[in-house]
Amino acid sequence: MDLDLITAAAGRLRGHARETPLLNSPFLDEIAGRPIWVKAECLQHTGSFKYRGAFAAISALSEAQRRKGVLAFSSGNHAQGVALAAKQHNTSALIIMPEDAPRIKINNTKALGAEVRLYDRHKESREAIGATLADQRGLTLIKPYDEPQVIAGQGTAGLEIADQCAALNIERADVLVCCGGGGLTSGIAIALADAAPKMQVFPVEPEGFDDTARSLATGTHQHNAPQARGICDAIVTPTPGDLTFPILQRYCSRGLVVSEQQALEAMALAYARLKIVLEPGGAVALAAALFNAPERAQHPVIAVASGGNVDTEMFQNALRHAPSL
Amino acid sequence: MDLDLITAAAGRLRGHARETPLLNSPFLDEIAGRPIWVKAECLQHTGSFKYRGAFAAISALSEAQRRKGVLAFSSGNHAQGVALAAKQHNTSALIIMPEDAPRIKINNTKALGAEVRLYDRHKESREAIGATLADQRGLTLIKPYDEPQVIAGQGTAGLEIADQCAALNIERADVLVCCGGGGLTSGIAIALADAAPKMQVFPVEPEGFDDTARSLATGTHQHNAPQARGICDAIVTPTPGDLTFPILQRYCSRGLVVSEQQALEAMALAYARLKIVLEPGGAVALAAALFNAPERAQHPVIAVASGGNVDTEMFQNALRHAPSL
Repeated sequence: MDLDLITAAAGRLRGHARETPLLNSPFLDEIAGRPIWVKAECLQHTGSFKYRGAFAAISALSEAQRRKGVLAFSSGNHAQGVALAAKQHNTSALIIMPEDAPRIKINNTKALGAEVRLYDRHKESREAIGATLADQRGLTLIKPYDEPQVIAGQGTAGLEIADQCAALNIERADVLVCCGGGGLTSGIAIALADAAPKMQVFPVEPEGFDDTARSLATGTHQHNAPQARGICDAIVTPTPGDLTFPILQRYCSRGLVVSEQQALEAMALAYARLKIVLEPGGAVALAAALFNAPERAQHPVIAVASGGNVDTEMFQNALRHAPSL
Repeated sequence: MDLDLITAAAGRLRGHARETPLLNSPFLDEIAGRPIWVKAECLQHTGSFKYRGAFAAISALSEAQRRKGVLAFSSGNHAQGVALAAKQHNTSALIIMPEDAPRIKINNTKALGAEVRLYDRHKESREAIGATLADQRGLTLIKPYDEPQVIAGQGTAGLEIADQCAALNIERADVLVCCGGGGLTSGIAIALADAAPKMQVFPVEPEGFDDTARSLATGTHQHNAPQARGICDAIVTPTPGDLTFPILQRYCSRGLVVSEQQALEAMALAYARLKIVLEPGGAVALAAALFNAPERAQHPVIAVASGGNVDTEMFQNALRHAPSL
């Protein structure tokens, strides 16, 4: 897993993934006491960065693999990214989703052309269902983060950050990334280590799901409590990935943690000040930049806003935190 | 008023105005039955395209003019654009705003460093107040649309559309633009006539404020009823401008009209499918693209989403139209 894989993925993604803008607002800078820039991956195709990794992985398959189709487990953003990227490669996608996943995510995945197989999370094993179907049809599994081509695809966001910051004369910055399994964070960290070596990358997680922060602090894989429940559904993986954790250990000194309340406030500020729609899990990095930045520094902080696939009820909940203007 | 003025403005705006993205979604294409691309000017600094024209006009002033400061009348987006552009040119801005303007717009304008003078729309004349203050202080008036440098600044959005469409191999398209006084529509029309001559520009207005559509149909300045009230506050000017109307007559065959209901639905779809925040007046072009496109054609339609400065109560009203996903 190195920079070459990321630059190769960037080449394959050219003309497909959007170069998402780096947005800012004097109102956000004032809250943070330093310049904040937001990498708006909610504006990526399918509403999250996941399209990058899915496209990178599917475009790297052999013709023989593509003829047979791909398989993914996901209740959300990875599902949609795989569905669209598969369609664009004229291959079929089978997505195994829990039957209690948000309707928006199930319906979008179907609408993007994927075959969706729902399962009962309490009675069935998605791995067993997937193994049987993959075996019957010869499907290739596209993992959500513990897969070099997926990490490489997510890392293309890091190359864009480096280019966009160079154009803004930003050399030194703290780069805060919403972190679930760590695919986006580790991809960006590898890209920036080479392309913008004075930038420091920090994974950001919500309270109760700070497995990465605790794993970095202890040096060993820590897990979230199995009974933990929260609103940041996009980033509530149980523990860092086997591939991603060593990368995070190499490049990230520590993780940051925000409350769900802070994530909702960040959603409201992104709506009011940047005119973008974020989901709770996609807003934790901005929340940390606003309310819990790593140090009292004056150099800029860059927050990766990783996704915007939010149910309207939850978005309205966030709007109640909108600043009284 | 010609292309040279627009390309000169683009040069001055480089590194200041954002090149806003051209967004799309298969879900919007399906509704329209043809490809839709959305030029997301809500992501421009200050949340609307108005920053372009304000910056273009203020950057064209003489040093002597800038030393004395600028003046604008506006209840909304032009106010914020002038305030920020003035600050960036180290000149002062005096904005005359009705005391019943939305609080968000008054407060943002002040927060951007402008001096705000409120007046009572029913008892005072903003022109008289402005004339007295301009006279006392030697201020230069920055008009919202009937001013060549302002039209030139707005036209830079048209140059970007031409470049972005060329990269997408889109040669022929209908370009739909939210239209109040006509500054944005005429600037874009001039830019595209040269840079992408197979594109057809259409101004779009809400019902009850279709002065431009009626003026184009009759060939003479038509006015909106003085008692007309609506939710599209950004684009409810009484009649086309003296400078802009001849330009619209030259380049636009006719205007399109949408209902307020359609504008709210377009806001909800932009939220759900593109993850951007639009105000009602900034959503009418997308509404026309979705529900009322100029003809049953297959070539793409480009909708300019001109602004996103919306009160949260109104935005929540629009969310009630969000598709049940």
